[in-house]
Formats: sequence, structure tokens, C-alpha cells
Amino acid sequence: GVFIALEGGEGAGKSTQATLLEQWLTVRGHTVLLTREPGGSAVGSSLRALLLDPATGAISPRTEVLVYSADRAEHVASVLDPALADGQVVITDRYVDSTLAYQGAGRAVDADDLEWISRWATGGLRPHLTVVLDIDPVDGLVRAGSEPDRIESEPLDFHQRVRAEFLRLAEGDPEHYVVVSASGTPDDIHAAIRRAVEPLLVGVTTR
Amino acid sequence: GVFIALEGGEGAGKSTQATLLEQWLTVRGHTVLLTREPGGSAVGSSLRALLLDPATGAISPRTEVLVYSADRAEHVASVLDPALADGQVVITDRYVDSTLAYQGAGRAVDADDLEWISRWATGGLRPHLTVVLDIDPVDGLVRAGSEPDRIESEPLDFHQRVRAEFLRLAEGDPEHYVVVSASGTPDDIHAAIRRAVEPLLVGVTTR
Repeated sequence: GVFIALEGGEGAGKSTQATLLEQWLTVRGHTVLLTREPGGSAVGSSLRALLLDPATGAISPRTEVLVYSADRAEHVASVLDPALADGQVVITDRYVDSTLAYQGAGRAVDADDLEWISRWATGGLRPHLTVVLDIDPVDGLVRAGSEPDRIESEPLDFHQRVRAEFLRLAEGDPEHYVVVSASGTPDDIHAAIRRAVEPLLVGVTTR
Repeated sequence: GVFIALEGGEGAGKSTQATLLEQWLTVRGHTVLLTREPGGSAVGSSLRALLLDPATGAISPRTEVLVYSADRAEHVASVLDPALADGQVVITDRYVDSTLAYQGAGRAVDADDLEWISRWATGGLRPHLTVVLDIDPVDGLVRAGSEPDRIESEPLDFHQRVRAEFLRLAEGDPEHYVVVSASGTPDDIHAAIRRAVEPLLVGVTTR
């Protein structure tokens, strides 16, 4: 299988791009699974509600890390691992890097601890390619809309630290990351993502 | 503050004994907080529902560990730490040892990993005394009743491994543990717990 993660701040257009990528891959004959975190598994949907509902209010940063990691562990075990073992092309809207960015840079949870927990939760599963959709949070939060969820409601400097961390992760491992500016048109962004994904598909069986 | 954990298998009578202990301490003039895991915090109640509802079905062992640990992290940060800082006597119905017993011995999750995650989730907070209420699971599961929750529904040998682990933990650290047989009358069990708790109360301020 081929494992692609889409990452980025609020309002970067991840879901739009995930759908465009899924359609393109399907037309090319691949069996594609489009999924997301949090909430990509049966149990995950109630964890997602808890994490994003503004009514949840403040929870401790470690609690937040552990709930995201629980959601991720179940996502890997019940959704991602089986699909990849089946040879599918898997696209996930958010993965480990969102925890490194939001809880690590955003909430100042120790990065080594987050690495340890993320590796444990995922059994070490890493994407072949992570696409970072980069957007200035000033624009992203406007795009994200007027009913912010619990995470979107964080102050601007939180979202600026998140953005900087995504870019830092991508810079540190150019072989497994591509950064695409989210300020272009959806078609331009899609074309840039396609160019980055295409080399991964060489030799992958199609229907 | 003084921190006491009650541990033990299903049907050991932990909640009855926790209440009797709370009443005795209150009469002696202590400010007592009686709480439990999972579900001792605001967020914890929805995590408890997810963990114990039979409708949740099978989840991966790592997911289970992470949800229990999330519940525990929030319990420590929002309930246990503040009460202990306030000088209260805190009684919790289940704590870290339940994870070591149920997910470690019961589900064969690596013990070192569980120690690491538990220390991280709790910030290293450990009970002054852990009371293990020991019961043969053959009797305990009968006492627990006819509508078993998701954990009670596990097979007998699961519960036997859980029991053995509680006893092993107690044996390894006799200074911080007492094992009380749950086969006596509630009053006898209460008296044994009182004898173990009394030395902790020397010099603790009362109202």
C-alpha cells in the first residue's frame, strides 16, 4: 500500500484536497481509502466529538494528547493497517504531525514524549509522504468559518506556533514531505499535490 | 494530603468499602474526597461510558490503554492534585494498578510501556497506600451481577490473570500495599482497611 498524510492548519483546505486527490487516484485505477483523524474509526467518532466540541472546555494538555493518541491507535489498528496490508492507497486527513504541531508546539508538551507516545500508538507506522498545506493562520481562521471548534478557538499565536512546527517538520525530512502553499486556487494546489504523489505510484498495482 | 487507592477485581466490594472508609474518616474530622476511575472528572464520564459500554465492542489493547490513561491524566490534573494540595484525604476507587492488571496482565500489553505511560499520565503521582481487595473471580463475577459491562464480560482466565497481578504488585512493595481478603463480612473488611489506613493519619490536620 501507499500511505499519504495531509497536514496543515485550520482552513488550509485539506478536506477539499483530500477529495480531489482521492478522485484522481480512483480514476487512475487505484483502490483508495480516504480517512481522517480524529474520528476515522468507530470508537474514534465519539473521541472526535469530545476533542472538538467547545462544550468540552479546557482539558489538561496530557489528557488531550492521550485522547488524540487513543483515536490514532484505533485508527491504525482497525483502518489504516488493514487497508495498507490490502495494497490500497490510503489518504488520511491529519496524522501524527498534527499532535506534534498542536500539542507539542501549540501546548508546549515535550516533543520527545510525544514522539514516544505516537510511535507506541501507531506501532511505528509512518506515511510514505506527508503533504503540508501551508496557510497563514490569519487567512486560515477566516476560511475555517464563524463557528470555531474547540481547537480553532485557540488564540492566533497558538496557530502560528502550529504552522511553524509543520514547516519545521517538513524541512527536516524533505524526502518524506512536500509543502504546498494553500494560497493558490484549488486546481493549482491539486496539481502540486499530484506532482508530489505521482512518483509513489510507480509499480503500484491498479484495478 | 493523603492518597489512598482501592484496587481489586470485579465484585470485590470496592465501592462499599470506599464509602465505609469515607464515612469513618469524615467522622474523625478529615476532609475526604471519594472519587473513582474511570470517570472521576468531567471529561472522564464520557470516556468511562466508552470503556465500559458493551456496545463499544472490541477495541485494540493500545487504544484501551490510551483511553484509560487519558481519563487518568484528567483525573489527576483536575481532581486528585488539587484535593491533595488542599490537604484532603483522597480515596480513589481504582488507579494505575488497574491498568497494570487489566491491560498488562489481562491483555498482555508490555509492562514497561504501561509504567512509562502511567507515569506520564499521572505526572508521577503515587498513592501513599493501595488497598487490594482480593477475591476469587469465580465468586467476584457472580457478585458483580447479571448485566456485565465490557470488561466484566471477559473470560474467567482474564480475570484470574488480573487477580494474580494485583497480588504480585502488592507483594513487591509491602510498605505501600495491604491485601485484604474480600471474603469476610463488610464490617470485618472495613476494620482491616481502617487498621492499614490509621498510621497514615498521624499528624494530618482535621477540621
